[in-house]
Amino acid sequence: MATQLTAKAREGGSLLSPEELRARLQAVGESRYHHLHPFHLRMHAGELTRGQLQAWALNRYYYQSRIPIKDSLLLAKSDDPAFRRAWRKRILDHDGDQSGYGGIEKWIQLAEATGLSRDQVIPCTGVLPGVIFAVDAYLALVRDSPLLIAVASSLTELFSRSLISLRMDQLRLHYPYLVHGLSYFEGRLTQAPEDAAFALDYVCAHAATRAEQEQVIGALERKCAILWAQLDAIDYAYVVPGNIPPGCFVPDAERG
Amino acid sequence: MATQLTAKAREGGSLLSPEELRARLQAVGESRYHHLHPFHLRMHAGELTRGQLQAWALNRYYYQSRIPIKDSLLLAKSDDPAFRRAWRKRILDHDGDQSGYGGIEKWIQLAEATGLSRDQVIPCTGVLPGVIFAVDAYLALVRDSPLLIAVASSLTELFSRSLISLRMDQLRLHYPYLVHGLSYFEGRLTQAPEDAAFALDYVCAHAATRAEQEQVIGALERKCAILWAQLDAIDYAYVVPGNIPPGCFVPDAERG
Repeated sequence: MATQLTAKAREGGSLLSPEELRARLQAVGESRYHHLHPFHLRMHAGELTRGQLQAWALNRYYYQSRIPIKDSLLLAKSDDPAFRRAWRKRILDHDGDQSGYGGIEKWIQLAEATGLSRDQVIPCTGVLPGVIFAVDAYLALVRDSPLLIAVASSLTELFSRSLISLRMDQLRLHYPYLVHGLSYFEGRLTQAPEDAAFALDYVCAHAATRAEQEQVIGALERKCAILWAQLDAIDYAYVVPGNIPPGCFVPDAERG
Repeated sequence: MATQLTAKAREGGSLLSPEELRARLQAVGESRYHHLHPFHLRMHAGELTRGQLQAWALNRYYYQSRIPIKDSLLLAKSDDPAFRRAWRKRILDHDGDQSGYGGIEKWIQLAEATGLSRDQVIPCTGVLPGVIFAVDAYLALVRDSPLLIAVASSLTELFSRSLISLRMDQLRLHYPYLVHGLSYFEGRLTQAPEDAAFALDYVCAHAATRAEQEQVIGALERKCAILWAQLDAIDYAYVVPGNIPPGCFVPDAERG
């Protein structure tokens, strides 16, 4: 992956216009964002069992729980108070300003709607190693990259509104027991497009060379791969019988 | 995973004897080492296609190529010339002292025996993100942990000799076109047990508290999960049709 980013960054060529850069980013999302992943297609077709939705909610909680840590690492890269004021909204959105109102708490409520208890979710015991490694790769990408690339890695939010909108419709239709657990997604319908617009403006304004523009595109590709790999791990472990790795969550229906 | 290590480390209790510590480590290997992984079981039963073996050799090359980097990070943690003299053997084993004689070169020869060209393998283009994230988690574990834990993470070598021995027999039997690509494994039959004995003596001598002993066991569990997750990603992408993630290696037989 690092190898691929480097190869991209080596490309020369003239500076892309903002419209060309946006079109390249859009093309990455259309071909690599996880709206195309087989596990999401199964979810939206109503094919998942309650145990599979539990596994998804439990594993994705690890990702949700790391988002404000990612954003804190990103904040620490900026020496501009105005940038930090704008970006810290994301930490507020996930952590809330009182118990029960942030995105992390709302994700726990979604997990509870699948039938898990809060105490099963919060310790992250039983999360798939493949999910942990992918999420930790996101933290490392943000921690070890310049601010421009760290911001670019958030650009998957450009594509999340339509996925979330579809998902809410399909979850309500196929899994009615989840209906009281959807407030996380309601919040993201407005938060994600606002955040994406800010990040897109930022990378268009601050990628000053073609090489930096290619690094921005490469960061979005890598972030798409990070989201995709989480679903690979979940689909592998919980859709094909016999594949749950040692030490990981076992839905009640799978216990012998 | 970090959460699980911490939970283990919190356990109190009295110091384990060397025999008890060895028995705990042995039990981890028996239940979590990747000799039990479905992809290896398929390999040893002769069920893999040439394209699947290509995918395995290509992806595992990323792991092989990172081993001397991991060992260099580990060397840098020690201020003891005697330790560094003993450990640097591992870098020599993988890099060789002339072209063509190290483990990395031998792995390329294995990949060539599957039908890949050297130029397809070395750039690591098309390696699964799930494999990259798992291997990078190994580098991060070694880089970010004390020397004792970094050494403990190598203890999977305690279990590799019997797996390699079985694998060589089964590869010769089921995939005769690989017969001239097995010199990597021949070397590891003697290298791995020597290395494992050194590392086991080291952790038995240097884990001075029960908490450190539990961290040693936790590091072996995590390393088992790192090996297991690589095979999860390979098995998911290349055994079930339609699952190859965007941008990853496609065997010739899979091309439309």
